[in-house]
Amino acid sequence: QDTTDNKFGKGISVVASDSSFSLRFKTRFQTLYTGTFNEATEKYKDNLMIRRARLKFDGFAYTPRLKYKVELGLSNRDTGGSIPQANNTANIILDAVLKYNFYGRWSIWFGQTKLPGNIERVISSAALQLVDRSNLNSRFNIDRDAGIQLRYASSHFRSSTAISKGEGRNITASNAGGYDYTQRFEWLPFGQFTGKGDYFGADLKREPSPKLMLGVTYDYNDRATRERGQLGGFLPEERTLETWFLDAHFKYQGFSTMIEYANKKAHNGPSITDETGATIGTFYTGTGFNIQSGYLFKNDIELAGRYTSVAPDEETGKAQNDQYTLGLSKYLVGHALKIQSDISLIDEEGADREYMYRFQVEFSL
Amino acid sequence: QDTTDNKFGKGISVVASDSSFSLRFKTRFQTLYTGTFNEATEKYKDNLMIRRARLKFDGFAYTPRLKYKVELGLSNRDTGGSIPQANNTANIILDAVLKYNFYGRWSIWFGQTKLPGNIERVISSAALQLVDRSNLNSRFNIDRDAGIQLRYASSHFRSSTAISKGEGRNITASNAGGYDYTQRFEWLPFGQFTGKGDYFGADLKREPSPKLMLGVTYDYNDRATRERGQLGGFLPEERTLETWFLDAHFKYQGFSTMIEYANKKAHNGPSITDETGATIGTFYTGTGFNIQSGYLFKNDIELAGRYTSVAPDEETGKAQNDQYTLGLSKYLVGHALKIQSDISLIDEEGADREYMYRFQVEFSL
Amino acid sequence: QDTTDNKFGKGISVVASDSSFSLRFKTRFQTLYTGTFNEATEKYKDNLMIRRARLKFDGFAYTPRLKYKVELGLSNRDTGGSIPQANNTANIILDAVLKYNFYGRWSIWFGQTKLPGNIERVISSAALQLVDRSNLNSRFNIDRDAGIQLRYASSHFRSSTAISKGEGRNITASNAGGYDYTQRFEWLPFGQFTGKGDYFGADLKREPSPKLMLGVTYDYNDRATRERGQLGGFLPEERTLETWFLDAHFKYQGFSTMIEYANKKAHNGPSITDETGATIGTFYTGTGFNIQSGYLFKNDIELAGRYTSVAPDEETGKAQNDQYTLGLSKYLVGHALKIQSDISLIDEEGADREYMYRFQVEFSL
Repeated sequence: QDTTDNKFGKGISVVASDSSFSLRFKTRFQTLYTGTFNEATEKYKDNLMIRRARLKFDGFAYTPRLKYKVELGLSNRDTGGSIPQANNTANIILDAVLKYNFYGRWSIWFGQTKLPGNIERVISSAALQLVDRSNLNSRFNIDRDAGIQLRYASSHFRSSTAISKGEGRNITASNAGGYDYTQRFEWLPFGQFTGKGDYFGADLKREPSPKLMLGVTYDYNDRATRERGQLGGFLPEERTLETWFLDAHFKYQGFSTMIEYANKKAHNGPSITDETGATIGTFYTGTGFNIQSGYLFKNDIELAGRYTSVAPDEETGKAQNDQYTLGLSKYLVGHALKIQSDISLIDEEGADREYMYRFQVEFSL
Repeated sequence: QDTTDNKFGKGISVVASDSSFSLRFKTRFQTLYTGTFNEATEKYKDNLMIRRARLKFDGFAYTPRLKYKVELGLSNRDTGGSIPQANNTANIILDAVLKYNFYGRWSIWFGQTKLPGNIERVISSAALQLVDRSNLNSRFNIDRDAGIQLRYASSHFRSSTAISKGEGRNITASNAGGYDYTQRFEWLPFGQFTGKGDYFGADLKREPSPKLMLGVTYDYNDRATRERGQLGGFLPEERTLETWFLDAHFKYQGFSTMIEYANKKAHNGPSITDETGATIGTFYTGTGFNIQSGYLFKNDIELAGRYTSVAPDEETGKAQNDQYTLGLSKYLVGHALKIQSDISLIDEEGADREYMYRFQVEFSL
Repeated sequence: QDTTDNKFGKGISVVASDSSFSLRFKTRFQTLYTGTFNEATEKYKDNLMIRRARLKFDGFAYTPRLKYKVELGLSNRDTGGSIPQANNTANIILDAVLKYNFYGRWSIWFGQTKLPGNIERVISSAALQLVDRSNLNSRFNIDRDAGIQLRYASSHFRSSTAISKGEGRNITASNAGGYDYTQRFEWLPFGQFTGKGDYFGADLKREPSPKLMLGVTYDYNDRATRERGQLGGFLPEERTLETWFLDAHFKYQGFSTMIEYANKKAHNGPSITDETGATIGTFYTGTGFNIQSGYLFKNDIELAGRYTSVAPDEETGKAQNDQYTLGLSKYLVGHALKIQSDISLIDEEGADREYMYRFQVEFSL
């Protein structure tokens, strides 16, 4: 048995004595219980599973200016979705990316990783304020992709520009349609959050002065072929998708709030029809709004609330969906070891009202 | 190159200097040759494969009372069985579980791991006395599941209580039917085995005084939907399954013997019939008996024998199967590095008599 | 954070203070861009993906004479090809093998690993001179297999003998047909290459005196059942395949050249016909020739060229294919961190002429 100077929750890091590289290893898993009660039928369905289990390797190599990151997803929820375009196999790789700080505040990224989309998506699934991301995210996020990104970061302003394949992670088939172009700007009017707090949920650092991040993302997916751009089923026709995200993240003395707006449009409309006019496939377009707030008590218990409204374009034939969520979390060691639960009222047009209860334990070495 | 104070066979462990966590990493693989000779047809079929290959991460975190374990299966034999209920993907996660010793001798477990079933199942596949587990285990074991377990352990007595989903590992679909309830008691009339010897095969510790473990498990799988509860194909109807296991493990001065009895019943009978009365699916029910004994010579060579009889209920239409096995193992570094081979006579009702030869090398870092 | 004495590009190694084992961990990934231009249709198709991502564990255990190696493939290109014979799941395991140096220069290997085939195949995909292997290799290589190998190595001569299952990696089904027998001899007339340079591309060591490796492999795959022996689709009939490889690798003062010849024949011809005489499947047989050379400039930039010709037997109905490739590589930290690109003219009989451009970044911890 050996001794390490690392602390729980930060992974295990080593740095070469000749400074030629560093490596941090992390592993994590989430065990999730979900129970859903249908008000009309009075039926209760539930589920218990390893929602996420991950291995993560990152660090620098050659020079501290060259960083690498590899993240592997192992749970069936993460690896599923075997499709011919991804070689009919498990999707294990989440991230495999090199990040080179070539000049001053500028970096270039190359490989597969998250696109600079809505903040809720880019926050790690290990660092969420509620049990899982909102329905806005499920419907509109632009997820991961293989490509190249140009990143600029100063204390008050950040810019991320991406050109990517456009079909999402682990696609082995040739690029369908055109590329995807993404631009995100972030403004931090009161300067940086403590410990990169803009990119984790809950004000665990109890910001002594107010901190705000305002972000806007524009994404142009030229001739997309999947229902939601980087995600969803492959459709028989292509549509160019344009997506806007506006988001804000605010933290102050244990209080935090995050607001997001999303809008997706398809050139020539989202629906694909055959000669008879019957709809044979639909891109998911429309508008989403999400607001969530929480307050972290002295004992590291947080009470949080969320309202999410997703309004698909009428032409899609999908139903409007509103969700009201109340969450209670106990942070034992920040996001590294926490117990989270929430209860949601799901109100979908044309469907029975449902109540969803979730309970999750997150463990990140 | 760094130096470690770990020894071969125990994995690589590190403990944080602030005692905030520990991590042990292990990797292992088994290369298995199997040859089967059919007495009637005189045909010989054989096979060589990586039977198991695993990565294992465990330790404590936050407090030594909170333990975690993640075990990943990587071989095609381990990851196969892609089904819609498991998201049509490779089943990589074996264990992902937290174990919290909340009070004295009591612990609570949460996540996915082995249920407290028959001893042969719970003994690691790396620590078996013969090349692989018996046919009793193949037919009746309750395997792994996602759930919660309550564990009590004193020097002479142990109790394990589990409530789990009931459909086995890596199921992403909603819970079918009801839950599974498991209770196991273990009695150690002569106290604990040396080095937890009740949970590995062969008396590698050469117990100076006789040691015995007696166990009984009762499992109630409320409205199960898979052929064998946690395992097997999904069936079109549900049946509540009740399973009993009685087992004993004895070790003394190099001699060891393990005896198991299993019985599984289905409420309303195991068969599912359509309107015409034709059987369209069958739960696997019946009785199994297994006895195995071995003697470890001074040179760490063990000679072992096993008799296994599986008698499915007549209504299942499955055949009785008797197996006689003779095994020879050389333990180079205990179960960490060993060569095992065995030969079995397989006598199945209504089938040709078969002889099966197996040769396996196990390597566990 | 801990300090390690390892250097970038060599992985992270630890050796037990009691010399009971060592472990080296490596991770790597390649991000590959491929663009193909069809001269006739003037269409351009492209692709960007994580071509390979790997985890590798190796070292010795018990005694320095017993070595182990486990290599895992994680990218969709590596894990795809889900087939019933491999348990319908992702193919994660590349290598899982023990190597025992039982006497002098003799070793025995047991498990799954590369067969001693053509040199280009055995050179790691991380250590290639051009972006990827040649078309000769794609069509004729004998890849990996589960089996046993006997290896002899002196300073001027090496021999590798293998008996393997014959159907390639991760097959869980019983052995089809007979075994595969492989024999390779290697002659190093001027002695060993610096740093095992015969088994990596480009003369990164700038050999001060000329070094040459001459190799010949003969492979007899008794009643093979896959199109290309260890690779390709399973066919409805068996054919015994005989494959010859002749290869040479030369390095001197930054200059390197590799030449390969391959020939595969099927007993009773490669084609499988039904009663009407229609072809319902074809083993891939014929002849391949590959020559590639490169010169490494002082600044670690290499210019390399390759000519590959593959001439399938007429009976297969496959087309002759000639490829002319020009490559440019920058080795930042040898093969551990490099940028490679190449452009190829693909001239296939009966098909449009194509130009293929590739750009790849390789990162190996």
